[in-house]
Amino acid sequence: MGSDSDWPFMKEAAAALEEFEVGYEADVVSAHRMPHEMIEYGSRAEERGLKVIIAGAGGAAHLPGMLASVTPLPVIGVPVPLKYLDGLDSLLSIVQMPAGVPVATVAVGAARNAGLLAVRMLAAHDADLRRRMARFQEDLKAQAQAKGERLRR
Amino acid sequence: MGSDSDWPFMKEAAAALEEFEVGYEADVVSAHRMPHEMIEYGSRAEERGLKVIIAGAGGAAHLPGMLASVTPLPVIGVPVPLKYLDGLDSLLSIVQMPAGVPVATVAVGAARNAGLLAVRMLAAHDADLRRRMARFQEDLKAQAQAKGERLRR
Amino acid sequence: MGSDSDWPFMKEAAAALEEFEVGYEADVVSAHRMPHEMIEYGSRAEERGLKVIIAGAGGAAHLPGMLASVTPLPVIGVPVPLKYLDGLDSLLSIVQMPAGVPVATVAVGAARNAGLLAVRMLAAHDADLRRRMARFQEDLKAQAQAKGERLRR
Amino acid sequence: MGSDSDWPFMKEAAAALEEFEVGYEADVVSAHRMPHEMIEYGSRAEERGLKVIIAGAGGAAHLPGMLASVTPLPVIGVPVPLKYLDGLDSLLSIVQMPAGVPVATVAVGAARNAGLLAVRMLAAHDADLRRRMARFQEDLKAQAQAKGERLRR
Amino acid sequence: MGSDSDWPFMKEAAAALEEFEVGYEADVVSAHRMPHEMIEYGSRAEERGLKVIIAGAGGAAHLPGMLASVTPLPVIGVPVPLKYLDGLDSLLSIVQMPAGVPVATVAVGAARNAGLLAVRMLAAHDADLRRRMARFQEDLKAQAQAKGERLRR
Amino acid sequence: MGSDSDWPFMKEAAAALEEFEVGYEADVVSAHRMPHEMIEYGSRAEERGLKVIIAGAGGAAHLPGMLASVTPLPVIGVPVPLKYLDGLDSLLSIVQMPAGVPVATVAVGAARNAGLLAVRMLAAHDADLRRRMARFQEDLKAQAQAKGERLRR
Amino acid sequence: MGSDSDWPFMKEAAAALEEFEVGYEADVVSAHRMPHEMIEYGSRAEERGLKVIIAGAGGAAHLPGMLASVTPLPVIGVPVPLKYLDGLDSLLSIVQMPAGVPVATVAVGAARNAGLLAVRMLAAHDADLRRRMARFQEDLKAQAQAKGERLRR
Amino acid sequence: MGSDSDWPFMKEAAAALEEFEVGYEADVVSAHRMPHEMIEYGSRAEERGLKVIIAGAGGAAHLPGMLASVTPLPVIGVPVPLKYLDGLDSLLSIVQMPAGVPVATVAVGAARNAGLLAVRMLAAHDADLRRRMARFQEDLKAQAQAKGERLRR
Repeated sequence: MGSDSDWPFMKEAAAALEEFEVGYEADVVSAHRMPHEMIEYGSRAEERGLKVIIAGAGGAAHLPGMLASVTPLPVIGVPVPLKYLDGLDSLLSIVQMPAGVPVATVAVGAARNAGLLAVRMLAAHDADLRRRMARFQEDLKAQAQAKGERLRR
Repeated sequence: MGSDSDWPFMKEAAAALEEFEVGYEADVVSAHRMPHEMIEYGSRAEERGLKVIIAGAGGAAHLPGMLASVTPLPVIGVPVPLKYLDGLDSLLSIVQMPAGVPVATVAVGAARNAGLLAVRMLAAHDADLRRRMARFQEDLKAQAQAKGERLRR
Repeated sequence: MGSDSDWPFMKEAAAALEEFEVGYEADVVSAHRMPHEMIEYGSRAEERGLKVIIAGAGGAAHLPGMLASVTPLPVIGVPVPLKYLDGLDSLLSIVQMPAGVPVATVAVGAARNAGLLAVRMLAAHDADLRRRMARFQEDLKAQAQAKGERLRR
Repeated sequence: MGSDSDWPFMKEAAAALEEFEVGYEADVVSAHRMPHEMIEYGSRAEERGLKVIIAGAGGAAHLPGMLASVTPLPVIGVPVPLKYLDGLDSLLSIVQMPAGVPVATVAVGAARNAGLLAVRMLAAHDADLRRRMARFQEDLKAQAQAKGERLRR
Repeated sequence: MGSDSDWPFMKEAAAALEEFEVGYEADVVSAHRMPHEMIEYGSRAEERGLKVIIAGAGGAAHLPGMLASVTPLPVIGVPVPLKYLDGLDSLLSIVQMPAGVPVATVAVGAARNAGLLAVRMLAAHDADLRRRMARFQEDLKAQAQAKGERLRR
Repeated sequence: MGSDSDWPFMKEAAAALEEFEVGYEADVVSAHRMPHEMIEYGSRAEERGLKVIIAGAGGAAHLPGMLASVTPLPVIGVPVPLKYLDGLDSLLSIVQMPAGVPVATVAVGAARNAGLLAVRMLAAHDADLRRRMARFQEDLKAQAQAKGERLRR
Repeated sequence: MGSDSDWPFMKEAAAALEEFEVGYEADVVSAHRMPHEMIEYGSRAEERGLKVIIAGAGGAAHLPGMLASVTPLPVIGVPVPLKYLDGLDSLLSIVQMPAGVPVATVAVGAARNAGLLAVRMLAAHDADLRRRMARFQEDLKAQAQAKGERLRR
Repeated sequence: MGSDSDWPFMKEAAAALEEFEVGYEADVVSAHRMPHEMIEYGSRAEERGLKVIIAGAGGAAHLPGMLASVTPLPVIGVPVPLKYLDGLDSLLSIVQMPAGVPVATVAVGAARNAGLLAVRMLAAHDADLRRRMARFQEDLKAQAQAKGERLRR
């Protein structure tokens, strides 16, 4: 993430990964305050064995796109909402990437979904993980049904 | 995609996949006009051996999110711009998914990037594809540099 | 509705129906967490004797449109506002349906109006209900006039 | 509709009604240029035997809401896009009605869907019409499938 | 105004008029709950001797435009912000009037400015009032200068 | 107006004034390119006998608000749409004035309505002009009715 | 700034200048309440030896653009967010200046960055100040790295 | 600039610099396709003697902000409008920079103003250039006055 102030959002991505027992590392790599380190981090991600990068940032959110430009790995962008504009600036700054360099963008503030999307990407090549994602979706359904039962009238 | 009118956009995703020699199938599976078939399509995608789904749709764009709800595979959503509102409706309808069911959203009209994002997802487990993506990024750079040379003054 | 967290909004639709002594059922049928059940629910609504469906959802709000795609009944959509974007995403995701599959959309958070709209639809074929809706509108007027009297100067 | 300049949009509502052999009348009743006639038109709609009113208007689009305020019938609003702002003003002016007086709003420029929504409302009390709406939806599916067949690869 | 819930905003218009000793009446005349009375109110405003009408309304704000359609008097519209969308819907619903029927729109929530605008309109034909408006502007300046003095460094 | 490129819009204000035989002057007084002259123009408007000022401007549209700050006369602002953003920037720059200094804002590009609003302001103190405005509104109605007759079915 | 209510924002610009030991003056110069003084202030800024002007304003924010129109000095505009619309109106009113008169606009509420931008402008001709800005950027990096260290896992 | 497709916009910045006889270099330095070169370009700008950097980019426009993060020089950002969203995405991606790293943002598509802003920055330390900027502003005024004369009536 670009700042430790993003952590209250981004830790939900970490939690999702932990639920699926997917290893991860969390770090502050600011596009605007540590540009060289950020470029270095992205450039070395593949050789260090990372499979997917999740990057959260707010406002003029450049971190996900810049990482995507220096790695062939898939990059997931989380638009972190700041004090004004409700994350619309973060969303457009992350999703509107030019042809050639995509960022997989999730909803404003949706770090949990970023984690789940990473799991899906990994699961595409891992039948066991795929089964667990399918089971997770069954659980979501069961919870929704239980809620429905309480409300039904 | 949800309609053949999306094909002029979506064929760029196909073209990107072809450049990387990634096999694919293209189909019209409308969330609103073929809901049962759409659910069936999504539900069987994994067992049919698909690894990633790219779904383009416009306006109240429900196809990517609905497919994501019936498959554990990663789903990439392409917001197709319609006649009014410049694709802002398509973008929000695709990206703002609830916790539990992510869609990897790309820019408005950015089907080519959807294809490239799919390649990156596959490449995460395929060193050869990863090398080709890295080479592709080198080519992008070379083209940009050539353009710079013509303009430089 | 798509989640029990929508109930604080949606119960106002139920209240409006009760004021007009119109029978109803309330249920959680999530488009994204119970897709098969949602499709099943919508597909069987007509044969079960329902006349109108009210569906509330937020963010990438797919429930109203998906139900409309599997039933010939009129579907009323309530854009539920989420934490960010003030319901603009919910509104566009519900109202911007493609040609062929309309959703009758009401204002952001306006579940009470969804109930009243359902009453109007039923009243179109029920002279007594129509009279009560007319009387209800008279009451609205009387209340507004009473407020005016207190404020007038 | 509020102006004959809305007719190129609104005639698609008429066409949809004709496809279902639903009788209708078309008229220009401007909220801002014929306010008394508009109020009169709305107030007498029920006793004249109308079942549903479809009203299209653009910009500060007051026609649908004003008609809804003087009739107990359901009113469908079509946001007609004007030269600037892509119909966003028309949409918000129609959909954001206060509690007590709902308007069933469809997508920007979606007059055809307004006609189909009216058919659904009538069909809720007309088994034959309901069957035809279900058949119409089957046809939509067949067309979508045919398009898919041509594109499939 | 359209509802007594607008009074916390609209009373600032009244206060501005009182500062300039301009006579006024305040009333609730709801476009959607008292349509006939609203039309009647607007139609009789001129013969009752009113010179300017100030109308505040929120959401699908139809009151200012409808009054303007039944009177030749100038109508000032105040976009009242509701719970969602920050008054953007109110603003567009009031300002985007069709050719032929203008509404003099002020800022979101700016009832005080509506009162001051009414004073300016009356002052255009009243040299004394114009002098007092000029003096009022001098006072604004003096206050701003005093604030500047405290802050200056 | 702020530039002669605004004239294609603003001449409709002039035309409206001519229809009502209201005298006027038209001038280019740019807030940003002739700031001293603009201030001078506004400051002297009252003593020169002007009754109302109509000011059109686009983008960061400062002309109407600045004129309003140096005159006690009512100022009508016309948001002129520029190449991008459809006049939303012009609208917000004109209408969102701070407390103390109102601008009577009309719709994006609605110079004709600015002229008609000026006529209404003058008519508030001129029974003859008021009668002509009422007749003008009758004519609008007659035209709308004639259009309705042609379309009615 | 245009009002002392902007000071809670604008004092961060002052703080940034103090960190770099750059002299400055702070004053309230309201475009709308002190137009002549504002023009005078801007017109004399150069001869008084000022090098850069920072102007914060909200809503229909005319101060930065008007100052830019009467001085050849660079003007930095800070969009101050008001109660509604989250500063979008302030941003567009400041940044969308017509050709010929630029304003250097920073983010909504970003007065600190306005101060830092002023330092950069001065530093372009002051090697010592440039070195301190470079050191400041090093410090930003060190802080971000320290935060990363605490979070890293 | 980030792409040669930005040149039709950005050449107006070059033209403005030429009018003031300010030396410049123009280059394509893409944030997303030449990230290492872009970082290198920005990092060496100061030691190569550049005084100001003008960077134009569209969509998820990261070039201006990234350059600002690796140089102590002032960076001017030009939001280039792309095919959809009218440059709103470009504007927010450039202007909404985090505290510590400002970008001096101009209007959507306003490359000429970027050039003029650069001249103002240089002129702050160059009395002759300041005089020419003042003369340029006089010329703008004379042109505006001439236009006014032709239109005046």
